[in-house]
Amino acid sequence: MIFVTPYSCMSAPELAREYALVLDEYDQLKAQGLKLNMARGKPSKQQLDLVSGILTAVQTIDDCMDGGIDARNYGELAGLPSARAYWADILDCKPEQVFVGGVASLNLMYDVVARAYTHGLPHSPRPWCREEKVKFLCPCPGYDRHFAIGESVGAELIPVPMTPTGPDMDVVEELVKDPQGKLIWTVPKYSNPDGVIYSDETVRRFANLKPAAPDFTIMWDNAYGVHQFRGDFVPFPDLISLCAEAGRPDMVIEFASTSKITFAGGGISCMASSEDNIQYFTKLFGIQMISQDKVNQLRHVRFLKDKAHTLEIMKLHAEVMRPKFDVVSKWLNREIKPLGFAHWVDPDGGYFVSLFTMPGTAKRVWQLCKEAGVVLTNVGATYPYGNDPADSNLRIAPSLPPVEELEKAMEVLTTSMKLAALEQTMNH
Amino acid sequence: MIFVTPYSCMSAPELAREYALVLDEYDQLKAQGLKLNMARGKPSKQQLDLVSGILTAVQTIDDCMDGGIDARNYGELAGLPSARAYWADILDCKPEQVFVGGVASLNLMYDVVARAYTHGLPHSPRPWCREEKVKFLCPCPGYDRHFAIGESVGAELIPVPMTPTGPDMDVVEELVKDPQGKLIWTVPKYSNPDGVIYSDETVRRFANLKPAAPDFTIMWDNAYGVHQFRGDFVPFPDLISLCAEAGRPDMVIEFASTSKITFAGGGISCMASSEDNIQYFTKLFGIQMISQDKVNQLRHVRFLKDKAHTLEIMKLHAEVMRPKFDVVSKWLNREIKPLGFAHWVDPDGGYFVSLFTMPGTAKRVWQLCKEAGVVLTNVGATYPYGNDPADSNLRIAPSLPPVEELEKAMEVLTTSMKLAALEQTMNH
Repeated sequence: MIFVTPYSCMSAPELAREYALVLDEYDQLKAQGLKLNMARGKPSKQQLDLVSGILTAVQTIDDCMDGGIDARNYGELAGLPSARAYWADILDCKPEQVFVGGVASLNLMYDVVARAYTHGLPHSPRPWCREEKVKFLCPCPGYDRHFAIGESVGAELIPVPMTPTGPDMDVVEELVKDPQGKLIWTVPKYSNPDGVIYSDETVRRFANLKPAAPDFTIMWDNAYGVHQFRGDFVPFPDLISLCAEAGRPDMVIEFASTSKITFAGGGISCMASSEDNIQYFTKLFGIQMISQDKVNQLRHVRFLKDKAHTLEIMKLHAEVMRPKFDVVSKWLNREIKPLGFAHWVDPDGGYFVSLFTMPGTAKRVWQLCKEAGVVLTNVGATYPYGNDPADSNLRIAPSLPPVEELEKAMEVLTTSMKLAALEQTMNH
Repeated sequence: MIFVTPYSCMSAPELAREYALVLDEYDQLKAQGLKLNMARGKPSKQQLDLVSGILTAVQTIDDCMDGGIDARNYGELAGLPSARAYWADILDCKPEQVFVGGVASLNLMYDVVARAYTHGLPHSPRPWCREEKVKFLCPCPGYDRHFAIGESVGAELIPVPMTPTGPDMDVVEELVKDPQGKLIWTVPKYSNPDGVIYSDETVRRFANLKPAAPDFTIMWDNAYGVHQFRGDFVPFPDLISLCAEAGRPDMVIEFASTSKITFAGGGISCMASSEDNIQYFTKLFGIQMISQDKVNQLRHVRFLKDKAHTLEIMKLHAEVMRPKFDVVSKWLNREIKPLGFAHWVDPDGGYFVSLFTMPGTAKRVWQLCKEAGVVLTNVGATYPYGNDPADSNLRIAPSLPPVEELEKAMEVLTTSMKLAALEQTMNH
């Protein structure tokens, strides 16, 4: 191993020499006129291609029949029984606890929040739009689209620090004592972006929350429940039954989708919760929907079959995803780790690497990458209101580019990280 | 032609004799233990079968490419360019004026109203939830799901009488002088349930409305724009461009879907409006959606192709629909017309016959039908709050049952109409 001096231990002339070297590397990269994108957790063409079977999963009139139900016609607002059973198998809950949605679970999440505002939830004293103030707890780094929903409806977003075992539950338990605290966003497995799995202890503490607001809701966005790319499937506790055991069965609403199992632009989604909640929302949703796309539900049931077969398909995805995360890992470990100014977690699943670069330099790194043709997720996006107080976090989304492009993008990223860190060190 | 005495001209003994005869007929029908449904405008199996080509319209990886866009992945929130162009062709507007939705246009209508409440429309002084009162104009008889949206968000529903040329525009022009009047529901072509086509004069008066509310919106639910089953396609003016010409380009939002062109449980929908409105909603919808199901958009574009080919497919639907409406017409004309106590319009398109039976007897007819095993649309549903002040209107939906069942159902209906009319006449 080559001995590397951390920037903080360098003398001014050493820093100047190092800066000149790194700047030269950066300029050479910039001169290549790259156009690479690591901004969003989009599946790659390779992944989309490997599930092409779904395109021919329902081809004939007979294929459209699900038991006695014709999937082509109106009806079955909460989803085809077979589709509800599929999701119940995936999520370890009961079919009656499932509402099957359209192409995106995000839309279900939005509708839950929007209905809470206009109509209230089953335990709401009043619709949230009639509350003086509503606060959403936002573990961060987190998912920008979650935060955007809260911001769009005018909720106050309260940051909660993330830890390697999930959100800091001491903070969460304290914050839910405030009756204005109405909701918490979570991504419990392979969290977005940190890639951590909430520990059993964290999940237990979620189930046992005693919030002041009777309608406090845990938005349990299980987006990556089966999306491991290293090792075998990791089972995960069912928060719905744990909340029921703890005496607050309606406190959690879980979400999932096939956006990263089949097609991001043609999948199905679901929400799962207590039967009471599902009945409440099915009634409310009955005003806005007649039924979701049941033919597509049937395509998914026929193609994905059940949890066991879905996990087989996820192993095919893993073969595509793992080498990409290996590239990210390789570059960070080789180029950045010895310098000691950044940290990250190598996840075993999910779609992101959450990179904490030298505090105060994330914006600069993002800009340097952009100028060299590499687009990263908007800097700050992982924090409420786009405000990362440490200006440190960058979300790396390596799923879309092919491995060879990723090598180049990581070269740009690590060089930019060094350059920004050197600038910062020299200016202090 | 047999000479028939209207009930109102019969003596008491004649009425009693007639009543006994009709009651006997009714009891015989009831004894058959029928189970028939004319409640909802559901397409029949025959119709669903004739568009099976859509199930195999997108089968390969190459099929999923739309120009340079991979329909399987995220992106193109407002719809694939080809899908926007398809709807623009159908609606005689521009692709930039189209947002392509999921399986149901109802969901788009709901979202427009819901966002008006939580965020306001482009010309809103404030979100509608901050208004003291909001009024929705409801031409009636009308569509119960339209009324239900207004009721669900707490708007006051104001009935507007329907005429053979559309809503009574004198009333509409008067009502929009009230700044609390924010919206009007319409079904301009083969209206639900009356089956009338709004006249050019009515459409012109809609375009030239000068409402007091700057954000007054015409919900132009063009659900049956290509759904004629007698005669050739009837062209229809484009209200979007007429509103623009009249100086209020953002006043109308049009809706349509393929629910009754391809599959009710697996179609696509759209909304169309000024480019400004579409941009406004695309931005707002960007919080709740990533994209709609673009693979299904592509299936529709490939299968339906364009307006000309869609009209060919509608002719196949017409072959299935026409005989059913002929049955309704036959029974009403033969059994009821000579008695003179009811009226209706024989539509050339759409999904319904709007039947005005003897005032004060609609509820009784509905109940008699139900007891004899024939389910009709809930009586009163065609009026705001389910309240038909004349207790006269019944919506007949003949699309679902096969012709032979329909014959039986119409026998039950016409017998029930006579029985209820006799009861009413005898009691007065």
